[in-house]
Amino acid sequence: MADRIEGLWVALATPLTADGSVDHGTLLRHSESLLRQGCHGLVPFGTTGEGTSFSASERLRAVEALMDGGIAPGQIALGVGYPSLPDTVALTRAALGLGLQHVLALPPYFYRDAPAEGLEDAFAAIIDGVADARLRMTLYHIPQVSGVAVPPEVVARLRGRYGLQVAGVKDSSADFAQFLAFRAAAPDVAITVGSEADIGRAVAAGGAGTICGMVNVAPRLVQAMFRDPAAEAPMRSAVSLIPGAFVAALKSILAFQTGEPGWSRVRPPLRAADPTVGERIARALKALELPEPVG
Amino acid sequence: MADRIEGLWVALATPLTADGSVDHGTLLRHSESLLRQGCHGLVPFGTTGEGTSFSASERLRAVEALMDGGIAPGQIALGVGYPSLPDTVALTRAALGLGLQHVLALPPYFYRDAPAEGLEDAFAAIIDGVADARLRMTLYHIPQVSGVAVPPEVVARLRGRYGLQVAGVKDSSADFAQFLAFRAAAPDVAITVGSEADIGRAVAAGGAGTICGMVNVAPRLVQAMFRDPAAEAPMRSAVSLIPGAFVAALKSILAFQTGEPGWSRVRPPLRAADPTVGERIARALKALELPEPVG
Repeated sequence: MADRIEGLWVALATPLTADGSVDHGTLLRHSESLLRQGCHGLVPFGTTGEGTSFSASERLRAVEALMDGGIAPGQIALGVGYPSLPDTVALTRAALGLGLQHVLALPPYFYRDAPAEGLEDAFAAIIDGVADARLRMTLYHIPQVSGVAVPPEVVARLRGRYGLQVAGVKDSSADFAQFLAFRAAAPDVAITVGSEADIGRAVAAGGAGTICGMVNVAPRLVQAMFRDPAAEAPMRSAVSLIPGAFVAALKSILAFQTGEPGWSRVRPPLRAADPTVGERIARALKALELPEPVG
Repeated sequence: MADRIEGLWVALATPLTADGSVDHGTLLRHSESLLRQGCHGLVPFGTTGEGTSFSASERLRAVEALMDGGIAPGQIALGVGYPSLPDTVALTRAALGLGLQHVLALPPYFYRDAPAEGLEDAFAAIIDGVADARLRMTLYHIPQVSGVAVPPEVVARLRGRYGLQVAGVKDSSADFAQFLAFRAAAPDVAITVGSEADIGRAVAAGGAGTICGMVNVAPRLVQAMFRDPAAEAPMRSAVSLIPGAFVAALKSILAFQTGEPGWSRVRPPLRAADPTVGERIARALKALELPEPVG
């Protein structure tokens, strides 16, 4: 199993049934489709997947459903990371028990003014609590959403203490200077960017690839970012189509693209987007997205 | 059992053993001491209790230990309220299963830009999920810490939908205009203030009392707020002694006051205060606190 998350990984959106449960069948079909189109792996229950809105058992059952559908555990990195360290440890251990190695860990995010040393304490307590050398943890830096930054020096110190167990950072800051700071501080750690328009220059600067949300709705455009500098302009245009309420809008687009209304459902406290939002953005995206390959 | 939280309830700090577990014995002794001094009830695992840093089973075991020590379930209101609604429902149901009725519920706090309608959806989903008419929920408004405000109109609408199950609001905003807005929007709901220096005027304006942290370290001063307008000045002085890192400082004070070093421990990502902080503040508090009653 790969020690690092590399290439194009999907921050999966989470389809819901009418009673608000995870729709395992739709999640599997969507995942299979994205892997068939060349994506390298799946991250269920990240920010795009409303991960913090789902219990540990809901997340684990969804992973089992993906694996029952034939997806390899090495292609799955589960979103973990609770405010409470014992909860993060328990979910991570359970994920490893299912055969996964990769997890995407939010820092404990209730305390938005936690000092860097406290964040290092927290991640160290998680890794010590999991106590499994197979662990490959990606630390999740998305301060504009979670409220808590993961300082590059904390990544460097944790890598020094735990080696390969501190496998990566998902840098969703959309600030390229921040990406470069992670690269400089922790050159052995796999840095994936969340900002789709930065994929090209991040990979050129030694980045490992991306874990991103737009690939749910525009996979060919995101793939092109790995090989074609000309893809950046339409990618930026595509990203700019999505309003502030990213998750609800993205799910509304998926509902329109697939004809499956379950995609548009969200868990409270989020609210579903108006269906016309998804239709309007989906049509605009279609004009930007690359044509489907023939045959 | 009382339908409302009224009077003086303690937002308990959480003592830890050397291995980071909840120190049940110290928590019980501290609780007994506060009840003996006239406090009306206990709120374990609120913000002062680092509630979000403890798993559901840790919180429930601590409640069981308090009840095993002879504390009545009607004197306990458990801090619940996860980002994930199923987790909040499960913990609340378990608390009711232990015989409690009162819980203190943070809104789902990962989404700091959730709309008011989404917060109403969330609390409604929790109450519907708990599905137990005995529930007496206090909604927790502490936006400067949790990042999520509980709008007064949401409280009013939920009270209209769920009656006594929406029993109260803990207003820890320290903004008296906010307290008055809660009173005006939901006059049947018990509004407790977190700001100790506001207790007197809040009770005079129809407030139900307080759930507060300072009572852990200055119980007589907080009690005096209920009967003596002259207590406000020393109470404000006492509050102003505590620095920004409130929980760590408060626990450091308790460690000095009791001589039990376990009080000073905190869970990551918090960091313990320097012991001199607790000593310095404890000495200053002693000069402000009322003398112990004789006999």
